[in-house]
Amino acid sequence: MAGPLRVALLGCGTVGAEVVRLLHSSGDDLAARVGVPLELAGIAVRRLGKARDLPVSDELFTTDAAGLVARDDIDLVIEVIGGLEPARTLLLAALAAGKSVVTANKALLAEDGATLHAAAAKAGADLYYEASVAGAIPLLRPLRESLAGDQISRVTGIVNGTTNFVLTRMDETGAGFADALDEATALGYAEADPTADIEGFDAAAKAAILAGLAFHTRVTAGDVHREGITEVTAADVASAQAMGCVVKLLAIAERCGDAAGAGITVRVHPAMIPRTHPLGSVREAYNAVFVEAASAGRLMFYGPGAGGSPTASAVLGDLVAVARNTLSGACGAGASDYADLRVRPMGEVVTRYHISLDVADKAGVLAAVAHAFADQDVSIRTVRQEGHGNDASLVVVTHAATDAALQAVVEQLRGLNSVRAVASVMRVEGET
Amino acid sequence: MAGPLRVALLGCGTVGAEVVRLLHSSGDDLAARVGVPLELAGIAVRRLGKARDLPVSDELFTTDAAGLVARDDIDLVIEVIGGLEPARTLLLAALAAGKSVVTANKALLAEDGATLHAAAAKAGADLYYEASVAGAIPLLRPLRESLAGDQISRVTGIVNGTTNFVLTRMDETGAGFADALDEATALGYAEADPTADIEGFDAAAKAAILAGLAFHTRVTAGDVHREGITEVTAADVASAQAMGCVVKLLAIAERCGDAAGAGITVRVHPAMIPRTHPLGSVREAYNAVFVEAASAGRLMFYGPGAGGSPTASAVLGDLVAVARNTLSGACGAGASDYADLRVRPMGEVVTRYHISLDVADKAGVLAAVAHAFADQDVSIRTVRQEGHGNDASLVVVTHAATDAALQAVVEQLRGLNSVRAVASVMRVEGET
Repeated sequence: MAGPLRVALLGCGTVGAEVVRLLHSSGDDLAARVGVPLELAGIAVRRLGKARDLPVSDELFTTDAAGLVARDDIDLVIEVIGGLEPARTLLLAALAAGKSVVTANKALLAEDGATLHAAAAKAGADLYYEASVAGAIPLLRPLRESLAGDQISRVTGIVNGTTNFVLTRMDETGAGFADALDEATALGYAEADPTADIEGFDAAAKAAILAGLAFHTRVTAGDVHREGITEVTAADVASAQAMGCVVKLLAIAERCGDAAGAGITVRVHPAMIPRTHPLGSVREAYNAVFVEAASAGRLMFYGPGAGGSPTASAVLGDLVAVARNTLSGACGAGASDYADLRVRPMGEVVTRYHISLDVADKAGVLAAVAHAFADQDVSIRTVRQEGHGNDASLVVVTHAATDAALQAVVEQLRGLNSVRAVASVMRVEGET
Repeated sequence: MAGPLRVALLGCGTVGAEVVRLLHSSGDDLAARVGVPLELAGIAVRRLGKARDLPVSDELFTTDAAGLVARDDIDLVIEVIGGLEPARTLLLAALAAGKSVVTANKALLAEDGATLHAAAAKAGADLYYEASVAGAIPLLRPLRESLAGDQISRVTGIVNGTTNFVLTRMDETGAGFADALDEATALGYAEADPTADIEGFDAAAKAAILAGLAFHTRVTAGDVHREGITEVTAADVASAQAMGCVVKLLAIAERCGDAAGAGITVRVHPAMIPRTHPLGSVREAYNAVFVEAASAGRLMFYGPGAGGSPTASAVLGDLVAVARNTLSGACGAGASDYADLRVRPMGEVVTRYHISLDVADKAGVLAAVAHAFADQDVSIRTVRQEGHGNDASLVVVTHAATDAALQAVVEQLRGLNSVRAVASVMRVEGET
């Protein structure tokens, strides 16, 4: 067996520590799978001297991350620092030196993945980032490789565990958003500042990465239409139940237009989907990604979306692949943006709306409401009238129309005298 | 762009014809993904002159498969003939000549995968076979690569669409096995001779392939304990429903023993699983594989299990990967059997039983039955007594025990005077 491949680890928090433990406990197994041993040659941390209880010598730790990356004896670099800087500078330095990179950094990939991919391609190095989306679910490799002979039409994901936990609790207990979030926080499923999760920023970053892979196009987080779950009410969840649906925060990337003017749309928002849809049974903090492809049909990938162990598992899976490629000289055959499709605005998305209106309890209301839909050429699928007097309401579910037309309908409804309030508007997905 | 890679296609039935169509319609896209064009250079068929309506010249067709494989200008070989011979001889010839192979042939892989893998390793060629298990679900690549840094403890699959369709109908309509099979046949989900499906042979071949990949060990179809679904009754399905379960034909490969005496068990049999289990919602002819790994946690892969298009999609995904490897010189880094675990007999499997007994309606029956379980150290989880007189029955669900002990209990129950018949015995899976 040839000499070992030497690995630099950047960052030693929850995921990094688990990577260290797995490299140690699975050393023999990894060596058998790669063909040579993988040797941890250095660990860059912010502070030395912290008690870490890891099975490695103290001498491996350094605060000089840039120096570690630059060392001649380093073959591969794992980055689990997170955030844009210094991660970006470190990874660009590694790639420029021809060192392949494994990263779990979704923020960086979503913000500037194109620059990293270009640096990897130029240097003939690998850039792998399975851990950046949906934890340990092997997802990027299937999108990048297994479905490479197919044409993907849509990717729909539940890619944020915190929000899925909150929405699951709302569905199970009838609780409102605030109470369900409190429970998630108490149980450790939500961070003290949950903004990135509940406002959809985390999901939007993952949507950008997924969209780029599925459609071979550069997509950044800024391209993603984003709505969080803070305005989802117990009434919305109950309405969904009445329709045989469940509310989920979905990340959706889909191809639109024809061959001549093909484009994609990428969005994150709460939506109602049928309980019988494969994504409808994804509960608690689990993640899943549902892929629709021309030949392969409907596929789904399900698993834990976060956590130190699952994320470390994904990092090690990538490390094995990158190590094998390094030995065989096959690095750099990674992602691609050759399709270069245009990202189109949210208004061009074709979807369906569930609209709940508080209305005056008098004749002619339905006619006025129906007129607003007709004005925008939006076809109504069902209308349900409920309650009387001050509790009178109308629930309208539309057929598919552009988001722009549906938004225009909602604006028009807001201006109607007979409509006291547009109580809720939610998209309906997952039906054909 | 360099010259094209030239591909030989062996077999031109449903899947082969779809491969031809996709190679034609996606030619530009595939060339962009691979880096060079893929050119179909020959198609081996059993008979010439058949009307095929394919977008290729008649001159590509030949009945001389061996001659086609041996041609100097062929770089890659796709095999969709199926069966052991001549497929094995053709693929061994291709591999010996250093030509990488993509095959959908589960029978051959399950029977003699080790020989093919050895030939590929010796020649430094690739052997890819994503299409051989669970159609287009990208499954083998994640098992082989993404989870390569993890330790898999168990793989549980619904890998046969015909039996899943039949069991779904029995669950939905209360029909017996024969009626549900008739419906499946009428709708095209079961073949005229459904033996390979309903007796579990097809699932056993796939189980062998999955087990080999998950545990890096040689497993053949003959190593797999196999029971089909022909004896599953409407009463079994109703009993499952009463427990919140559903009956599925499961293919299960799991690690057993400790590090010193590690082994694996591989089995295919009907079992009850909870409806809330991710596999519980896999209905109709869909397939899914549920993977439990030490670090990654619980993962599931879901999709269509068969069909010309999904299978052809998987073949093309493999073809792209193999083509890229050929260009980069990275072929041959495929499967492995280094772990070399011993396949252990069914008796060593630890599982739970659901046993339904027709019993005499008299005092002391429960005591006698409980005694039989205690004799084999099998712990009872629940007992339900139902009916009176000639309809009196006992339904027993056990805690986990070895299959050998559970079988011994059943034998002992059959010998009891107070037990008129052991009406049904079914394993219970998917609970911790």
